[in-house]
Amino acid sequence: MFDRILVPVDGSDGALAALRQAILLQEKFASQLFILSVYRHYSLLEASMSMVRPEAPENLDDSMREYATGVVEQAKQIARNSGVADVRGFVKSGPPARTIVQFATEREINLIILGSRGVGDIENYLLGSVSHKVTSLAQCPVMVV
Amino acid sequence: MFDRILVPVDGSDGALAALRQAILLQEKFASQLFILSVYRHYSLLEASMSMVRPEAPENLDDSMREYATGVVEQAKQIARNSGVADVRGFVKSGPPARTIVQFATEREINLIILGSRGVGDIENYLLGSVSHKVTSLAQCPVMVV
Repeated sequence: MFDRILVPVDGSDGALAALRQAILLQEKFASQLFILSVYRHYSLLEASMSMVRPEAPENLDDSMREYATGVVEQAKQIARNSGVADVRGFVKSGPPARTIVQFATEREINLIILGSRGVGDIENYLLGSVSHKVTSLAQCPVMVV
Repeated sequence: MFDRILVPVDGSDGALAALRQAILLQEKFASQLFILSVYRHYSLLEASMSMVRPEAPENLDDSMREYATGVVEQAKQIARNSGVADVRGFVKSGPPARTIVQFATEREINLIILGSRGVGDIENYLLGSVSHKVTSLAQCPVMVV
């Protein structure tokens, strides 16, 4: 039923809650667990980077990839410590929601589990969060934890 | 883990897909299945009813309650035909998302399963759908199918 579960992670408490839910479901369904961290490529941040020195963007890209890799490794470790044998980590750059949905389609994921920003985050609510975009665009069920 | 699953239904294909997912999960987790149909009370529709004759609103309210009741009965029947023993139906009036979330809190639901409007429904995407509101407001995991 849920052979292949995807958990996008970003180091937030919400993502950690999603990971814990995924670990419980993985156990029940003997699923493969896919962990994905998406970082935005420099070009996507350009508009807000005008104050930064010219040499910064390359370093920034490296730093973001490094951070995303660390987040994935930490999540994999948590899953392994909880007894999940079949867990794989991935790092991608791109717009978060579309990159998550594209990954899910390519890997034939049948459940995406996401953290929510929680109640009361009005800006997030009005502007449309990553979780909202993913639930709108995904071809498979999406659980928001 | 998911002792008490709630499926809000409105007669749409999306709600039917959510119901089918709930039936499968119910089987796996031996859950109680709660089916809820929410209709908007007359006062919530007032603004758009100015063309209707004065006596219409009361009938409208009755019609909407009747429709919602029919939708719940049909969903219960589908669940029972699929072998779900413990299924209960409810009809409430109010703003859909808040009424669903309030019901979920009162009944200590631990998973809400909702249909989505699907890809490409841009108006729904921009304005914020019921599923978006529910995922934002609910205290428990929400699965959008």
